[in-house]
Amino acid sequence: MSNDTYYAGGTEVRLFEQAFHRRVPVMLTGPTGCGKTRLVEHMGTLLGRPVVTISCHDDLTSSDLVGRFTVTGGDVVWTDGPLTRAVKTGAICYLDEVVEARHDSLAILHSLTDHRRALYLDRAGEVVHAPDEFMLVCSYNPAYRSSLKELKPSFRQRFATLPMGYLPSDREAEVVVAETGIELAAAHRLVQCANAIRTADAAFHFEPPSTRVLVTAAQLITAGASELDAAEACILAPLSTDGAITEGLREVAAASLL
Amino acid sequence: MSNDTYYAGGTEVRLFEQAFHRRVPVMLTGPTGCGKTRLVEHMGTLLGRPVVTISCHDDLTSSDLVGRFTVTGGDVVWTDGPLTRAVKTGAICYLDEVVEARHDSLAILHSLTDHRRALYLDRAGEVVHAPDEFMLVCSYNPAYRSSLKELKPSFRQRFATLPMGYLPSDREAEVVVAETGIELAAAHRLVQCANAIRTADAAFHFEPPSTRVLVTAAQLITAGASELDAAEACILAPLSTDGAITEGLREVAAASLL
Amino acid sequence: MSNDTYYAGGTEVRLFEQAFHRRVPVMLTGPTGCGKTRLVEHMGTLLGRPVVTISCHDDLTSSDLVGRFTVTGGDVVWTDGPLTRAVKTGAICYLDEVVEARHDSLAILHSLTDHRRALYLDRAGEVVHAPDEFMLVCSYNPAYRSSLKELKPSFRQRFATLPMGYLPSDREAEVVVAETGIELAAAHRLVQCANAIRTADAAFHFEPPSTRVLVTAAQLITAGASELDAAEACILAPLSTDGAITEGLREVAAASLL
Amino acid sequence: MSNDTYYAGGTEVRLFEQAFHRRVPVMLTGPTGCGKTRLVEHMGTLLGRPVVTISCHDDLTSSDLVGRFTVTGGDVVWTDGPLTRAVKTGAICYLDEVVEARHDSLAILHSLTDHRRALYLDRAGEVVHAPDEFMLVCSYNPAYRSSLKELKPSFRQRFATLPMGYLPSDREAEVVVAETGIELAAAHRLVQCANAIRTADAAFHFEPPSTRVLVTAAQLITAGASELDAAEACILAPLSTDGAITEGLREVAAASLL
Amino acid sequence: MSNDTYYAGGTEVRLFEQAFHRRVPVMLTGPTGCGKTRLVEHMGTLLGRPVVTISCHDDLTSSDLVGRFTVTGGDVVWTDGPLTRAVKTGAICYLDEVVEARHDSLAILHSLTDHRRALYLDRAGEVVHAPDEFMLVCSYNPAYRSSLKELKPSFRQRFATLPMGYLPSDREAEVVVAETGIELAAAHRLVQCANAIRTADAAFHFEPPSTRVLVTAAQLITAGASELDAAEACILAPLSTDGAITEGLREVAAASLL
Amino acid sequence: MSNDTYYAGGTEVRLFEQAFHRRVPVMLTGPTGCGKTRLVEHMGTLLGRPVVTISCHDDLTSSDLVGRFTVTGGDVVWTDGPLTRAVKTGAICYLDEVVEARHDSLAILHSLTDHRRALYLDRAGEVVHAPDEFMLVCSYNPAYRSSLKELKPSFRQRFATLPMGYLPSDREAEVVVAETGIELAAAHRLVQCANAIRTADAAFHFEPPSTRVLVTAAQLITAGASELDAAEACILAPLSTDGAITEGLREVAAASLL
Repeated sequence: MSNDTYYAGGTEVRLFEQAFHRRVPVMLTGPTGCGKTRLVEHMGTLLGRPVVTISCHDDLTSSDLVGRFTVTGGDVVWTDGPLTRAVKTGAICYLDEVVEARHDSLAILHSLTDHRRALYLDRAGEVVHAPDEFMLVCSYNPAYRSSLKELKPSFRQRFATLPMGYLPSDREAEVVVAETGIELAAAHRLVQCANAIRTADAAFHFEPPSTRVLVTAAQLITAGASELDAAEACILAPLSTDGAITEGLREVAAASLL
Repeated sequence: MSNDTYYAGGTEVRLFEQAFHRRVPVMLTGPTGCGKTRLVEHMGTLLGRPVVTISCHDDLTSSDLVGRFTVTGGDVVWTDGPLTRAVKTGAICYLDEVVEARHDSLAILHSLTDHRRALYLDRAGEVVHAPDEFMLVCSYNPAYRSSLKELKPSFRQRFATLPMGYLPSDREAEVVVAETGIELAAAHRLVQCANAIRTADAAFHFEPPSTRVLVTAAQLITAGASELDAAEACILAPLSTDGAITEGLREVAAASLL
Repeated sequence: MSNDTYYAGGTEVRLFEQAFHRRVPVMLTGPTGCGKTRLVEHMGTLLGRPVVTISCHDDLTSSDLVGRFTVTGGDVVWTDGPLTRAVKTGAICYLDEVVEARHDSLAILHSLTDHRRALYLDRAGEVVHAPDEFMLVCSYNPAYRSSLKELKPSFRQRFATLPMGYLPSDREAEVVVAETGIELAAAHRLVQCANAIRTADAAFHFEPPSTRVLVTAAQLITAGASELDAAEACILAPLSTDGAITEGLREVAAASLL
Repeated sequence: MSNDTYYAGGTEVRLFEQAFHRRVPVMLTGPTGCGKTRLVEHMGTLLGRPVVTISCHDDLTSSDLVGRFTVTGGDVVWTDGPLTRAVKTGAICYLDEVVEARHDSLAILHSLTDHRRALYLDRAGEVVHAPDEFMLVCSYNPAYRSSLKELKPSFRQRFATLPMGYLPSDREAEVVVAETGIELAAAHRLVQCANAIRTADAAFHFEPPSTRVLVTAAQLITAGASELDAAEACILAPLSTDGAITEGLREVAAASLL
Repeated sequence: MSNDTYYAGGTEVRLFEQAFHRRVPVMLTGPTGCGKTRLVEHMGTLLGRPVVTISCHDDLTSSDLVGRFTVTGGDVVWTDGPLTRAVKTGAICYLDEVVEARHDSLAILHSLTDHRRALYLDRAGEVVHAPDEFMLVCSYNPAYRSSLKELKPSFRQRFATLPMGYLPSDREAEVVVAETGIELAAAHRLVQCANAIRTADAAFHFEPPSTRVLVTAAQLITAGASELDAAEACILAPLSTDGAITEGLREVAAASLL
Repeated sequence: MSNDTYYAGGTEVRLFEQAFHRRVPVMLTGPTGCGKTRLVEHMGTLLGRPVVTISCHDDLTSSDLVGRFTVTGGDVVWTDGPLTRAVKTGAICYLDEVVEARHDSLAILHSLTDHRRALYLDRAGEVVHAPDEFMLVCSYNPAYRSSLKELKPSFRQRFATLPMGYLPSDREAEVVVAETGIELAAAHRLVQCANAIRTADAAFHFEPPSTRVLVTAAQLITAGASELDAAEACILAPLSTDGAITEGLREVAAASLL
């Protein structure tokens, strides 16, 4: 069974494909671990394009994206960065958690995301025109509302935005089985446990458990851990370090698990 | 049909041309995506001058503008930056979103924007006098009122300021058709949808949808997406991540679209 | 007697081992000096893997983790950092006090802690795939609640979290004896003194005394210091510089010690 | 007609000249565009000294002023900065908007502005004694009262301060004619318009229009723009982006212009 | 008479020696100038170990402590920093005012101050194991309560803490005589003056006068200054620049001095 | 007539000399332009020692003080900074406005200002012992009470502090005559004017006029300026940019001057 199955029903695959064919950049939004990275990898396979992934962070400079001069054998030579390589090879370039990047680093994307579709390497004195196959994809998690950093509206308007959420329960359980080889019934219990906590989320204001933590818990269970121990380590403990909250969540979890 | 058509009726083309002939620098102001970059490219064609575009950002140093010493084959040589190249070749140099630049980087522009019309390359020990054909154009979006950064009055007074707004509805629909090949009727519906949201803007305090997002939505529609799906991804989703607001906007959009 | 004895009863050794075999990264949490570093060293011995320890701090760059270009004999060569070396040799890489690290440095860990299990060395243009034996372990102390820095939920969800606490009294006394050769009775008095202060902790809001300070105090005692002098120097003085509080703690300590 | 005419009546030319002959540094103060730069150039001509202008900004280091070591052909050689060159050649060195400079950069001026009249190049291990012809001139705009940066009193006391204001109306109109070739009557209308806005300034708290913007407006008028269009672009638009204020100013302007 | 005399009665010499023999790092605390540096030098003599002193400050990097790569004759070679040299030679390494250091620089000390007793030179790819003779000593002044910087509890718990205070009056007078050759009676008057101000300290909230300032005052007296002039310059003037407070202190001082 | 005359009556010359002979560092305090720099130069002449002056500022690094490695002819060589040169040659090293320096730069002075009298060049791996002739002198203006920066008490206690004030009127007038050749009567009027403003200072809270501004005003008067014009430019204008205050000061000044 290939990963392709999981996305066949959603509109995101179709809209992503349409954006690709019309050279429209795409912005994926949604909670942690809901499958944004996997969707990009899936689309790379589907569209026959390599995927270049860049994890964004505070200290990512535009040189880290486009390249820099380096010294080799006494001479100074230009070395392309991952974005430049992606443009030149017509890859899908995926900027994960783009909201974390310094905004000045994002300015280099302006000319790539409008009608120019070109990368201006001012320091190298070169302009790289993107082939039709090149596609830029970014992602961020809008739930971090308290963050000091926000993407500028003018930046968001450069993308077709595809909001993503958690998978439906049955599908999520299937993913957990496929990733870990756990029994389907146990996978269903883990999903049920996650959904109970996700529902309680509005009251607690923490980041709800992702599909990823269910996979991690299932890994420990298949290695011999009890369901409660695994859920404690992988689902509950990362949510909060406040003893009272953890106690409450433990009761919620215990109601679902063996 | 050339881009020239779209600007024939406004005063901005005429004032821009007069400023060019009297060597007066120009400041373009207006909302995101209203066509500032396109106007500069249009004027470059009209006046027969190349356009050098520089996207401003927090980390743009004056060296990025004027050039720097680099090491080649063991020797240190000066390499002109894009502004210096623009001055030397008599180009139109366009500093996009100039308010984003560090103010110290802008000091280098002082001698270019008064009667001296010269670039002082202090580090290279050189003075570059601008030919008559050289023109400096800057832009910014005054709607970001909450921004901590503001252009100094003494800087703004160095430019003739041309405020720009959205195109009239008919013209905007024509642009969308010309860019994407969408049917005129669908383009009109997209413009109507955008205008409805722009009117609601005062209440919601977000950056209103630009012509650019209408073009993006039209791209998806011509690729087979429904008008509502395309508007959801390209017009509504970038506006806000607040569920209640998005719900309200969706009703506004649905009233205009098929 | 080996260190292995001390952990045989807890669940942390078993869960750590299960995580290792299923390639799940582990996050250790707990108060200062409760034995997190020792557990990692113990597990390295148990699993037959070398341990590479990295103390995190504000100024740790991703280059310090993965490596950098350095100049040797006129040429520029890439030198692996400790994380890269750990990945290549299939070691247990232990990031101590990970919450202290700059978050941008942590972004490099994303691809190592999901299904990719790979290190992307963007600057060297290389991808290092982790062998099955490689394991990432991080630790932090959640009691620093007032800290401005917090691990992002999406980061915490990448790990199985094992909370650790103080050892039971008898076991803690055995550790103190094994480390210092102090008499068992004196070790028990030191543990009793520590427990009395730990209980008073809720009122005083300081970091409670760790097993480490008991070992240090026992070192001075075996060198000839009185129990009260040693406790004063190693247990009480580091807790607070407020004279009144220290006075109160001295009475608590005097009740347990000779 | 030479520029010399415009300043013949003021005391600033005479005091500037006296300061030059007694080797007293001069500080020019006054609103944006009132002619500080022009006065310095005028005095350079009058006193037969070259003028070296340095635009100050946040990022100007003392190395940018005095010079630095650079690598040429494998050797490290000292290269004088503009201030050092000005001292060595006995020029008038003009630091424009000195309040913008980092204060640490200004410390290098201390020994130049007291009885020592010498520049200490600590890094080059050299002392440069200023010839009698060398003069230091600085300027700033005291109207930026809200600025976080202020010149230290001990720094201001090192200079003879010459406050400058707008030219008298007739003289200002003459300057506009001389610079642009506009008709005298139109120049008078522009000056009248500016004076009306300058009078309204106390209420609006913006930087009032300078002689420079009148020259810019006159440039557009001589190129064919209407007086109102030119005033809108060059005088009103730079003042404020608040629609209501601009509306009010437009009425004030319309009362003066054709 | 040797310095050894002064410390013979306190517990600090004995505890310091016990810590040295059991390889426990020591933290000295106490007011400015109470003799922390002297105690370390005294212990170095007593224990027969060289002392390497490092004054901590905001800008001390871990490279300043452990070493760095430098370029010599075209090659890049590693140069040990003072901490590394101290470890290799089995010296007493004294970090003066450790609270002033950047906390990230202190992380390098973790592995030196627990059971590992090793210095990890990540950049040089080397581990230096401390010989038994190596000892780490730090100091700070807890009276700077208003300081933004505080040592982390987990850091303080790594040390045996020895609090130090002023010497008893007779002993302090002896120190002043031994250092300066002043008459004993005058030394007693200076100590009496200092004690009067130290007692008034609670009301004035300034750093009380140290033994060091008494020595400095005695130096001026032996050079011919009057006791009041010397006390004014060395004891009173450094305490406060507030005229009223200084006036009050002068009366306090005059009551003790000739 | 030599400068020596002016200080013969004060205690500062005598205390400075006593401090020099007992190797005690000196801190000069007092208002701007009261003659601190001149006193140091005077003492250099009197004691037969060269004076090395360093103007402190925010960006002064310890490398700027002690020296750094530089590249010459392909090799890396150490170059002494001004402080190191001063120590080696037994000069008087004068740190002007020491409060402006970064505190980390001042840490290098600790070992020079206590019983060690040595400079530790950690990076060069060298210890420079100060000869008896070496003397460290610092200065700052305590009137900047609002400053965020303050010297630490432990730093101030390392110096004998000599507070300086304005010269008596007759002496100040003599200085003005000696520096400029102005008539004695006019010099007295300038001093009278300054004293009137200094008296009004408490109400206005500005930095009072220094002897330096009287000298500057006298320079313009001897060049032909009227007393009022010279006082306006050199005494009043630097004090305040507030029109109302300047008006009030002008009346005060007019009462003293011709």
